[in-house]
Amino acid sequence: MNQHADIARDAVRPKSKFRPPAVHQVRVGGFFGPRIDTVATVTAHTLLDRCIEAGMLDQIDPDRPNPGIRIPFQNNSTVSTQMFWDSDFGKSIETAAYALFRKPDPALEARVDAVIEAYARLQDENGYLNSWYQRIQPGKRWTNLRDCHELYDAGHLIEGAVAYYHATGKRRLMDIMARYADHIIDVFGTGEGEIPGYCGHPEVELALVRLGRATGEQRYLDLAKFFVDQRGRAPHYFDREAEKRGEGPKDYYFGSHEYTQSHEPVRDQRRVVGHAVRAAYLYSGMADVSTEFGDETLQPALRSLWEHLTDKNLYVTGGFGPSHFNEGLTFDYDLPNETAYAETCAAVSLVFWASRMLGPGPDRAYADVMERALYNGALAGLSLDGTTFFYENPLESRGGHHRWRWHRCPCCPPNIARLVASVGTYIYGEAENEIAVHLYCESIAELEAAGIKVRIAQETRYPADGAVRLTVDLASPAEFALHLRLPGWSPGVSVHVNREPVDLAAGTANGYLTLRRVWAAGDVVELDIDMPVERLRAHPKVGADQGRVALQRGPLVYCLEEADNGAFLNSVVLRPGSAFRCEPAEDLGGAVALVAEASREAADAGGPLYRTEAPSRAAATILAVPYYAWDNRAPGEMLVWIRQEEGA
Amino acid sequence: MNQHADIARDAVRPKSKFRPPAVHQVRVGGFFGPRIDTVATVTAHTLLDRCIEAGMLDQIDPDRPNPGIRIPFQNNSTVSTQMFWDSDFGKSIETAAYALFRKPDPALEARVDAVIEAYARLQDENGYLNSWYQRIQPGKRWTNLRDCHELYDAGHLIEGAVAYYHATGKRRLMDIMARYADHIIDVFGTGEGEIPGYCGHPEVELALVRLGRATGEQRYLDLAKFFVDQRGRAPHYFDREAEKRGEGPKDYYFGSHEYTQSHEPVRDQRRVVGHAVRAAYLYSGMADVSTEFGDETLQPALRSLWEHLTDKNLYVTGGFGPSHFNEGLTFDYDLPNETAYAETCAAVSLVFWASRMLGPGPDRAYADVMERALYNGALAGLSLDGTTFFYENPLESRGGHHRWRWHRCPCCPPNIARLVASVGTYIYGEAENEIAVHLYCESIAELEAAGIKVRIAQETRYPADGAVRLTVDLASPAEFALHLRLPGWSPGVSVHVNREPVDLAAGTANGYLTLRRVWAAGDVVELDIDMPVERLRAHPKVGADQGRVALQRGPLVYCLEEADNGAFLNSVVLRPGSAFRCEPAEDLGGAVALVAEASREAADAGGPLYRTEAPSRAAATILAVPYYAWDNRAPGEMLVWIRQEEGA
Repeated sequence: MNQHADIARDAVRPKSKFRPPAVHQVRVGGFFGPRIDTVATVTAHTLLDRCIEAGMLDQIDPDRPNPGIRIPFQNNSTVSTQMFWDSDFGKSIETAAYALFRKPDPALEARVDAVIEAYARLQDENGYLNSWYQRIQPGKRWTNLRDCHELYDAGHLIEGAVAYYHATGKRRLMDIMARYADHIIDVFGTGEGEIPGYCGHPEVELALVRLGRATGEQRYLDLAKFFVDQRGRAPHYFDREAEKRGEGPKDYYFGSHEYTQSHEPVRDQRRVVGHAVRAAYLYSGMADVSTEFGDETLQPALRSLWEHLTDKNLYVTGGFGPSHFNEGLTFDYDLPNETAYAETCAAVSLVFWASRMLGPGPDRAYADVMERALYNGALAGLSLDGTTFFYENPLESRGGHHRWRWHRCPCCPPNIARLVASVGTYIYGEAENEIAVHLYCESIAELEAAGIKVRIAQETRYPADGAVRLTVDLASPAEFALHLRLPGWSPGVSVHVNREPVDLAAGTANGYLTLRRVWAAGDVVELDIDMPVERLRAHPKVGADQGRVALQRGPLVYCLEEADNGAFLNSVVLRPGSAFRCEPAEDLGGAVALVAEASREAADAGGPLYRTEAPSRAAATILAVPYYAWDNRAPGEMLVWIRQEEGA
Repeated sequence: MNQHADIARDAVRPKSKFRPPAVHQVRVGGFFGPRIDTVATVTAHTLLDRCIEAGMLDQIDPDRPNPGIRIPFQNNSTVSTQMFWDSDFGKSIETAAYALFRKPDPALEARVDAVIEAYARLQDENGYLNSWYQRIQPGKRWTNLRDCHELYDAGHLIEGAVAYYHATGKRRLMDIMARYADHIIDVFGTGEGEIPGYCGHPEVELALVRLGRATGEQRYLDLAKFFVDQRGRAPHYFDREAEKRGEGPKDYYFGSHEYTQSHEPVRDQRRVVGHAVRAAYLYSGMADVSTEFGDETLQPALRSLWEHLTDKNLYVTGGFGPSHFNEGLTFDYDLPNETAYAETCAAVSLVFWASRMLGPGPDRAYADVMERALYNGALAGLSLDGTTFFYENPLESRGGHHRWRWHRCPCCPPNIARLVASVGTYIYGEAENEIAVHLYCESIAELEAAGIKVRIAQETRYPADGAVRLTVDLASPAEFALHLRLPGWSPGVSVHVNREPVDLAAGTANGYLTLRRVWAAGDVVELDIDMPVERLRAHPKVGADQGRVALQRGPLVYCLEEADNGAFLNSVVLRPGSAFRCEPAEDLGGAVALVAEASREAADAGGPLYRTEAPSRAAATILAVPYYAWDNRAPGEMLVWIRQEEGA
């Protein structure tokens, strides 16, 4: 356990009922253990390698020659992804921090320290810190909050700084960012000469809440709330800002302030629109502010937005945002499979948002989605060996979609990396006298309830199967409530406490079973979560999925790959009656593969484009693998929504 | 018949074996008759109305106040659709010309004359004529051939001028355009001080061939050949032109010269790439040049391009070009239904290209596609009442896709209008001693073969049924070959001449039956073209169409509409065994509708996004209407590729 454990508790106890444990409090094994190890030993280094290869250190280090504009402007020449290099470093530092929680790595720590030193030398006298504006476009700071990711950069550096402090005890970057935050407080506001604006890409809001919690300083929470409250107010800050730049409304590449979710004040918003990651980061910040300030006025929007997204706009993989053009939402039930954008960052951000929606209390509506996004749409973003990354996450491929070594806009790699490396923090929730178990994964958690330390050890092979054994350990008996999520996808869960069956009907609310009792050391809770293979159908408004099913077992969504089934996956036809059996996929780390008898239509590359003859059919065995594991073997087709004929 | 019939023959007899008859030679009734009447009485006026509403007359008339830039620049600020207002007038004039062939209309003629007078006053001393460059961006002529449609404008004005001359005998616009063409001959070339370039949007090539044929002047044909030969040569003209404008290759919005099919010399091209309409206009120009110059070196490219498009990239409706971004091609078998761009102009241009591929001789490979595009993807572009127009032609709609009153880029309305109004010219082909019948439609054609006039009267209800009766009339008996297309979609055709059965096997080549005999007045040829309802399947690489069928009967492709079948068309499941019966659709002008018993899955707007229960099914009667007729009634869903379950 990290020697800085004592100082790693958030200095300010938020007013929410539940908050996630700190990363170091949860030692994760089982399904996620090896993935965390890979991030810690490989990916954390790879991220820094790629950042430095891209020239980022040259930009942030004022003692190095100015690299100039390396990445051309896009979107009507308003934005270069080089503007958010600071955020790539921020997330990479955060990933490194979680890696250091996992295992000591002096070399990694030294690399991060070097980056931090460069930032220290870069920071302006007045506290301002942004490598793009200080070195590439001096004189332009604060002139385009709408497009240029200025505060977004600050947010990710803040998150990296807080995580690094918790992991190493080193305050340097956090102090730098606190100084910068103090400068932002000076510069922004509704008073004379102050900027009444907010960032076009939300992020700094949730980051400031982390900074506030870590430092104990209320003013950072106040600043977060300021940004949330200002967003979308009339007169519109982005319009005035554009005018000052000599631009008119028609010059805005994205056309509408929906892109940045600033089309109206956040409390009035009811539909998820615009850029997907901006949206979920904003809602995460709103949920954090609602939590910190006990501000109920944000809840109606948050709940409506949640429902709008999850009821009508969510891919079965937990990804969202079908459109390449705005990297986001289009219209309800628009869920194309092959062209799905479903950015990795979007699924990651959905985990963040869902986790914060659990603040008021455990509710399966949020945790089920958090799990769906985590195990599928987000996790797919990282290759099994931790070295390559998906940006888009389609639900169908003809064979040409593969992970990247890096990307001109490298937001996704460090995002999925930091999520995986910190996954333990999403497993549990701690409140005054309550502990919530949101996810099941082999782990040992050092928590606190009823004023005392409580250790919970989960033993489970989840998601390979649904048997979970939780052992509670505490110095002396204490009463608290243990809430256990009963996954919505499971047809049935049985629970025993110390071998006595528990009546679920009595103690279940919002999809969680509450066990309120006096717990003693050695108490054992056993869950048996029924985990059949399910065939999911899509709402009839998702036209292209009609006549098709998506396979799910437990939290995992499955897909067919060419590597197992040959080409022409759309010629596979499942039979409703066929049973699936589980087999370990040795070439995918022993993940559970699903095998069944199906039919296949004859198919080959030749032949006319249109023909009148029906293809012949033959019986065939098909094998499906978890979606998160696709594209880790020979390149080829992939398909989530598989044809099934009811009458077959 | 138009009094100018004598002068309406092309003054130069091209070297091709076959050429289409002039528009006035064919009086069309039957299926297309009423559509032509609507264009003549309604659409021809509507087009001029819309052009003038948009401000086009203000731009072209130098005596009117300069309207300035009315339509903003797009595509990285390189292009405004206002740059091709001349082409909109050109095509509208052409449509009016064909309308005047159909029936006298002094008011229409006067409107066109007024536009022509404005152009006369606008034309530069040296012959240059382009309203955008003369009035909106003076000093910039010939500086951006790649993007700004400069010669494209000339091409459509030329086509309008030639058609108007043929229709009215008035030479004014044709003389104006000939003067402009002479100026272009001066300006362009490979000599010192000359421009070795060509237009980014092909069109002028095929137009110059029309001008050459109409005036008898070889130099216009030479200019057409020059443009075809120069295209794509190294060093690349567009790159040098961009350099002169101070731009680099990375500034090109579309990234690659494939967009303009100038990525390599045309004779080397084998794959259809880039913008769809540019492509088909270019290939039409290439086919015309090949014809006029007996230039066989263009044939390998033309044949390969044709195969590439029709074997791997054609929608079942005869549309092509799936992508909104480049309004064109992407990759083989990319044929998404709901997002299909399939611009009306693309299907129209495919009719143009196919018609020109028939120059060497009748070949069903070309005529079948010409028919498919004409009756489906092109014709859908015009509402039944002739007042509204489709730009994109998807094969599926959720209910939000409707025809436009007009469009900021109004290329499609006058394109489909001029095609419909001139459809007679596509029905037949005339050669020295041969007449080809490519399409079947009630009509009376005044043709020529073996040096004498031959009248062919087609009596038929096609496409309502496949019985066609052709009566041949000529002053005295003469020997010539009559080639009759046997549509590829028909399982069987029987032919009788003067009630005697004809042995098809003996006389059929390339899908045409050749009847070479001495024809006498009153000879009757009767065809019975079997026209069953076919269920088409798509190549297995078109993944989304697997498990679905498109209905076709004769040349018509069908679709389901919500107006007949209610919403949730993707919940309809056809049974392979169900027979379709034909019924007249009274609200669609008596078009043949197809009715069958099918199954429907229960579907409503509510319910979760994903569910495990299979929807229940019930029997239902479904009714399909011809695709060209969709969106003429209450707005709603539409679907071409309908689910069918083999085992049902």
